[in-house]
Amino acid sequence: MDKVLLGHGSGGKLMHDLIRDHIGGPFGVSGAGDAAILDFPGSRLACTTDSFVVNPLFFPGGDIGDLAVNGTVNDLAMVGAEPLYLTAGFIIEEGLPLADLDRIVASMAGAAKTAGVRIVAGDTKVVNRGKADGIFINTAGIGALREGVELGAGRIKPGDRILVSGAIGRHGIAVMAERNGLAFEPPVTSDSRPLHGLAGALLSACPAGSLRFMRDPTRGGLATTLKEAALESGLSFLIDEASLPVPDGVRGACAMLGFDPLYVANEGILVAVVDPHWAEACLAAARGREEGGEAVLIGRIAEGRQGSVLLETVIGGKRLIDMLQGEQLPRIC
Amino acid sequence: MDKVLLGHGSGGKLMHDLIRDHIGGPFGVSGAGDAAILDFPGSRLACTTDSFVVNPLFFPGGDIGDLAVNGTVNDLAMVGAEPLYLTAGFIIEEGLPLADLDRIVASMAGAAKTAGVRIVAGDTKVVNRGKADGIFINTAGIGALREGVELGAGRIKPGDRILVSGAIGRHGIAVMAERNGLAFEPPVTSDSRPLHGLAGALLSACPAGSLRFMRDPTRGGLATTLKEAALESGLSFLIDEASLPVPDGVRGACAMLGFDPLYVANEGILVAVVDPHWAEACLAAARGREEGGEAVLIGRIAEGRQGSVLLETVIGGKRLIDMLQGEQLPRIC
Repeated sequence: MDKVLLGHGSGGKLMHDLIRDHIGGPFGVSGAGDAAILDFPGSRLACTTDSFVVNPLFFPGGDIGDLAVNGTVNDLAMVGAEPLYLTAGFIIEEGLPLADLDRIVASMAGAAKTAGVRIVAGDTKVVNRGKADGIFINTAGIGALREGVELGAGRIKPGDRILVSGAIGRHGIAVMAERNGLAFEPPVTSDSRPLHGLAGALLSACPAGSLRFMRDPTRGGLATTLKEAALESGLSFLIDEASLPVPDGVRGACAMLGFDPLYVANEGILVAVVDPHWAEACLAAARGREEGGEAVLIGRIAEGRQGSVLLETVIGGKRLIDMLQGEQLPRIC
Repeated sequence: MDKVLLGHGSGGKLMHDLIRDHIGGPFGVSGAGDAAILDFPGSRLACTTDSFVVNPLFFPGGDIGDLAVNGTVNDLAMVGAEPLYLTAGFIIEEGLPLADLDRIVASMAGAAKTAGVRIVAGDTKVVNRGKADGIFINTAGIGALREGVELGAGRIKPGDRILVSGAIGRHGIAVMAERNGLAFEPPVTSDSRPLHGLAGALLSACPAGSLRFMRDPTRGGLATTLKEAALESGLSFLIDEASLPVPDGVRGACAMLGFDPLYVANEGILVAVVDPHWAEACLAAARGREEGGEAVLIGRIAEGRQGSVLLETVIGGKRLIDMLQGEQLPRIC
């Protein structure tokens, strides 16, 4: 037996065997009991969920497994929480090779270890062939909020600076290239990685309150995240196009295919808005970490033009940026 | 526009509109921010996750929405926790009628209100037509563990009594009947409902430690749950077949179709193992609640025959009960 069968989702003996042999072991959980019981420090909890439906399941720089861990770890990190616990829900299409499941589970376990979080509860369902697409994974995350941390777009003030922690567009292009059998030069790999260490470094680099806001620009790309934040803050965001970190491979792929790198998904960078007096200190703190080595300041906050994002282009023009309309690259996470 | 489009999963404007107009409103959440920030009382947290892939989405007595809330509420209740917060992850097949989504979301919101839990975080993905089956829903749940509560199969002792809180087999038969266009007389409806009130009543009806174990027998049915508990406890479970509460409609459907009601899924009953001195008190406490009105004692725990479940049949025989082998009714939750 080298494929997942419909009976593996039955709740019976086959499912017990699947969980014992292929899931519980790598995650270090027994599978017994309806819910995990865990210590929780503090009184403020952060909680989030994300489902992953990326196609293909494996791509340069990552796979659906590490993506499912890093994506949820990063959502917790963006509100200033210390990620602690993850749950994992698998919806598997009948016929998935068990070798693929093993590879994905190992990748999740590795990513959890790297991020320092525990996968504490799980669920496995199997649906008929043709009623899913290999495997979908949902993760939910629980974190403990650091003392005194308060972040949010409502705290952004005119004059604040905007920091991006790394190059944009890598994840979306890597997935799209793999899906379509394309290769770009230089090669583009996904930036899937945990960001809570970087988020902690930014929080530590400046006094409480001077880091206003963090968010990771995933689906919809950097443009959509900037527009969301501008709308939530009621201020306008001015972006210097020349400062945007677009890798050559991403730039070439986008030029060839007619994509705008501003709208391509990322999985391992964050946008931060910070008090101008502490912008350089935050930049230095980001650059002091491997995952923030390419951090740059890309713009500033201004009054007026409520909720707008204005790109000051290399040739001296100005372009209004909106959220992604319709879809650019579906199923990238 | 009356159907979900692939672009609704893009992370851009369409998705924002979908969440604002069809999901965030009923749940009372804004959709802004990467993670919810919540108060947490106490120091012991219970956490669980479950994905729901039931087919069809709507069936007599419930739908995928209330099932997704009640299923996770019940997993928290079974470890003795007070359910507090739920996350909801939607994986939607392109083309799902928005009216179906609205109906499902309203059902979830209603079930959450009934159970007294808040849906605090969500995620929406859309996959291509033919790559899912209408909608899949994952819920994860967070609860606060009551002081002094310690439950588990390892606490079960010889002489303990086994309680079942209501009639078996209703959920699985209701879903199967709807899927196949069958009608049974009397009609069978799903027992989908929250069980944390009943669980709390059992915990309050006896001194700490005398309620040993609770679990809700969902996929795999009562037989699989009893076998799991027997294996985890290392003791043997003796079940009196004549005491099993099988509704006439379930009995008739199973006779006609060749199913065993012991293996048919339930969504609104629990199995409890309790100190024999407190068994009648727990039975009375269960019967004092609407959802426990049909509670009965179905057997007892004995030494020897490690991990076995023995059914003492109506005609005087004994039958060894194992977990569900293969599958009986797939996609029932």
